[in-house]
Parts: sequence; C-alpha cells; structure tokens
Amino acid sequence: MCVLGLGLIGGSVMRALTATGREVFGYNRSIDGVQAARFDGFNATDSITEVLTRAAASDALIVLAVPVPALPIMLDHIRTTAPGCALTDVVSVKGALLRLVTDYGLLDRYVGGHPMAGTAHSGWSAGSPDLFVGAPWVVSVDDHVDADVWTDVMHLALDCRAVVVPARAHEHDAAVAAISHLPHLLAEALAATAFDVPLAFALAAGSFRDGTRVAATSPDLVRAMCEANSEQLQVMLNRAIYRLEQARNGLSAHASVADLVESGHAARVSYDSLVRPDIVTVAVGEDNWRAELAAQGRAGGVIRSALPVRGSRG
Amino acid sequence: MCVLGLGLIGGSVMRALTATGREVFGYNRSIDGVQAARFDGFNATDSITEVLTRAAASDALIVLAVPVPALPIMLDHIRTTAPGCALTDVVSVKGALLRLVTDYGLLDRYVGGHPMAGTAHSGWSAGSPDLFVGAPWVVSVDDHVDADVWTDVMHLALDCRAVVVPARAHEHDAAVAAISHLPHLLAEALAATAFDVPLAFALAAGSFRDGTRVAATSPDLVRAMCEANSEQLQVMLNRAIYRLEQARNGLSAHASVADLVESGHAARVSYDSLVRPDIVTVAVGEDNWRAELAAQGRAGGVIRSALPVRGSRG
Repeated sequence: MCVLGLGLIGGSVMRALTATGREVFGYNRSIDGVQAARFDGFNATDSITEVLTRAAASDALIVLAVPVPALPIMLDHIRTTAPGCALTDVVSVKGALLRLVTDYGLLDRYVGGHPMAGTAHSGWSAGSPDLFVGAPWVVSVDDHVDADVWTDVMHLALDCRAVVVPARAHEHDAAVAAISHLPHLLAEALAATAFDVPLAFALAAGSFRDGTRVAATSPDLVRAMCEANSEQLQVMLNRAIYRLEQARNGLSAHASVADLVESGHAARVSYDSLVRPDIVTVAVGEDNWRAELAAQGRAGGVIRSALPVRGSRG
Repeated sequence: MCVLGLGLIGGSVMRALTATGREVFGYNRSIDGVQAARFDGFNATDSITEVLTRAAASDALIVLAVPVPALPIMLDHIRTTAPGCALTDVVSVKGALLRLVTDYGLLDRYVGGHPMAGTAHSGWSAGSPDLFVGAPWVVSVDDHVDADVWTDVMHLALDCRAVVVPARAHEHDAAVAAISHLPHLLAEALAATAFDVPLAFALAAGSFRDGTRVAATSPDLVRAMCEANSEQLQVMLNRAIYRLEQARNGLSAHASVADLVESGHAARVSYDSLVRPDIVTVAVGEDNWRAELAAQGRAGGVIRSALPVRGSRG
C-alpha cells in the first residue's frame, strides 16, 4: 500500500494499516512530515518518483491523501510512473475528483473514498491508528468502478476499522455539503455575527461553544473542502438561508418560529434514532452490484465485514 | 428565599442555596414536581398563595423561575400577596420582562437576572446544585435598580457559585440573541436541511452532531426563549443570513468563501482567548455605580466575590 500525503488522514491510514501487518510506504512533500513519520518507525520519503516506482513494481494500491490543490501534480506523476496501479483517495469531495481522474486518464483503476473522520488538528503528529474506528468510510459505486479495485478499497477501509458506506459520487457530495460543509459555514457565520455584539462572548456558553467549535478549524482546510464542493454547497446554503428567512418572517409577522423549531427538532430526533443495518446480501461483481450497494447505502446500510466477491480476481 | 418554579433552573437554585445553609422554600404548579422536590427533602408546595404569604411574612427574596407564559399569572399573585418582597428572575430575556414587571407595578423592588446555564433536559429531576458553577449570571444594572436588592441578587448568584456579569437589559438581550437564540435556530436549520438529503444522516459525524446538538432541546423551550426575544433575534438572524448570502454569492461568482471563513475563524480564536478580569473597584450604591458596572461587564469583567456596598441597608 502506498500513501501519498502523510497529514492527519494519510498518516492515520499509514498507522492503522501498519498495525494490521500490511506493508505500507508513503510520500510527503515536506521533509518535516517525512522525518516525523520515520522517527516513529514508518517508511516515508519525500521523493514522489521513488515512492511511485516502488508502487508500480509491487502493484500497490495508491491512496491519495494530499491537499486538494496538490491533486493534479500527483495525478500527473501517477500517470507517468504508476498508471497501472489501483487508485483511491480520502478527499472530501468525489464528483470533482472523478472528473479530474478522468482528465488524467486514470479512471479505469480508480475507486473514490472518503473516511468521515477528522479533528481540528492537522499534520503527521495529529494522526492516530484509531482515527477511523467506527467512522463511516464512503467507497464510490459509480458506474465505472472495477470490482477488484472496489474490493481492495473496501478492505482498506475495514482494516482501518471504519464501516463502509457505498455511495455514488454526486449523492456523496450532496450529503457532505449538508452534514459537513454547511455546518462549517454556519459555525463561521455564528462566530462572526457574535463577534460584533458587545457582551456576547462574555455570556457565551454551551450552545455557542458547540455551534462554533468547527470554526476553530484551519481556514485553509475549511476553504479547500467547501470550495471544492461549491455547486452542492450552494444548494444547501440556499435551503438553509430560506429556512432562516422564513423564521425571521415568522418572528416579524406573528412572533413565531414554530415551523423551523419543530422541523429541526424532529430532524434531530430522527438522526438520533438512525438505524444502520448491515449490508450482507450483495456480492461484489454480481449483476447490478453497484446500483444495489448504492440503494442499500442510501437506506442507511453499512458494510461492517467484507462482502464476498463474485468471479475471479484477474 | 422563595423560588417559584422548580424545573431545571429553579430546582437547581433551590438545591444550590440549600447547600449553603440558606432557608429556601418553593412553589411548583405541577404536583409531580412538588412531590419530587419533597421526596428529595426540600420544602415545596403547589399552593401559590401559601408560598407567597410565607415570602411576605419573612421578607424573602422571590426568584421567578417559571416558564415565560406563566409569568403574568405569577406577577399578578405577587402584586396581591407579596408586593413588598425583593424580586428577581432567571428568565432568558430581560427587556420584555422589565416591561411586564413595570406593567404589574413591581419595578421598584425588581432586579432581573439570567444564569447562562442549562442542559438539554428539563424538570426537577434534571437539576443539580452544581449547575451554575463558573457560569455567567447576568444581573441587571438598568437605571431603576435598587442597590439593596441588587446586592441580594448578587449574593444569590455567588452562592450558586456562578460569576456575576452586570449588564443592561437591552444589551443582555442583544448578546443572548447572538450567542444563544441564534445558535438554536442555526442548529434547527441545519438539522432540517440535512433531513431532506438522502445519505446525509448516514454520513454525519462530528461537525453535524455538534452543530445540531441543541436542536434536541424541547421545541417549546426553544420557541419560548426565541419568541420572547423576537426583536433582537431578528437583527441577529438578518446579520447571519447576510453573511451566508455573501458566502453563497462568493461561491457562485468565484468559488470562494474566504471572507466568511476567515472572519469566522478569527472570531472563534478571539472567543477562545477571552480574558475575564475581576470587577473589584466598584461599590454598590456609590455614585454612578450602575453605569460603571455596565461598562465593566461590557468589557468582559465579572464579579467573582461580593462587592462592597456603599451606605446603609434601609
């Protein structure tokens, strides 16, 4: 396994997989990250050519874990040095990445991924082999995906002790716009609005602290993920703005926020009572397997132990 | 001390003050709450006339801790049975209450209060003597307030181990609109928006869970506090909506949310580094004491131990 980018996510993948006995080697652009990983006993280099040559020679699965702006350069290197390797990623948007990977001619062996885990911290030192325990890890079931590569990526996620949620790229992007990117922007708007009000910070307690926690995340990270999912995020922003405008109009007309408060409460109760059935009835590679997995993922299903695979592996 | 309403806040006040050795008696409308308090060894009744007769006879400080809709009935009883008692409250809006208390002719002996503490739970059983430890407790320094009553309310808050933040009613209301009521509506809007998106709850993790935590609060409580502070909340909603619209326009025009993300992050960092100086240089009742306390509260100051009082107590 070859991990490109040894920050919070890539570094945690490297630790988690190494702990299962897998052979893992990695690349990081900054020598600081490389030295930190080596100091902790891991196999890391700052030479992209070296790491990809080794990946090609050992037919390794390549995990893209670099920041979004670095993706084109990485894909260019992979196209040159390791075009036959299976390829996945841990990037928080999937539609844009699908287009990018297509542009670089690497679609055949690509299966997108996204572990829904993180902290407010970043860099190698923030990582942990336990970062993904129990977390949903989206694995793409778009039309093009290859059953063998898909199986490899499923095992990668399960070895990190995540649960696999199969999903199509555009559905993933709409969902994360709603549950990750929108909450970040609401937190920023809340913090910025309160900043201008005298006495506000002096009185702030639980609801403000919780509601602005993710505003402490590095602005570069927040911008990168929000801006990469611009189209879906605009849709969610419009919906949230509409609800807030309705609430303001309700207050203004008849001093009531009943509609918003009751629908929000019902939604949160529904979230708290979410049932996550195991997906067990699908064999990877059988007829219609991608659509079937997408449907079960959409219904809340997760893969907790490896699905069987139909047919041979090459 | 006489506590009217033995829910989460009133019940916690009763526990905290009893623990300091004070004589505390209370009223609750529902007999369930009364019985629960009695079972725990406290002095409680469901007779408002009985409790207020006792308050008048012992010149007790009355603490209004009933839900907002019950306030007029309580004030009517107080006007009839205990009009000479010092009066405070723990209600989350102060401007509307000031008008209400004025309407009932009880302004002279009234000093508004608001402990900034709570949980998602309610009722006597949710209370704790430690609920207010370290929490800001706003005590009104509006023009009318009497130094002796103010001192009694300050001691009430300090005995609950809160820190006292002196503030004027309208400044309090603007601040809590920004740091309590707005976060509740943003949480409701976030939960409701995500509810409609397939796959969203299946992928939801930290930022969504934190961002919607207060949407689990009883809708009646959220409505009561938001609707009672309608005017200030509309101002904050408009500001938040404006920021979100700017972010959406930025995404649409040039795929950037830089302005919102950078101002939100800076605001949260500022909140995290808030300094809370002790207010120690003011004597209650000296010239200009109310304006001086309001200014120091606005600047982040808190009262951690009782201020001296200028002049005699009657």
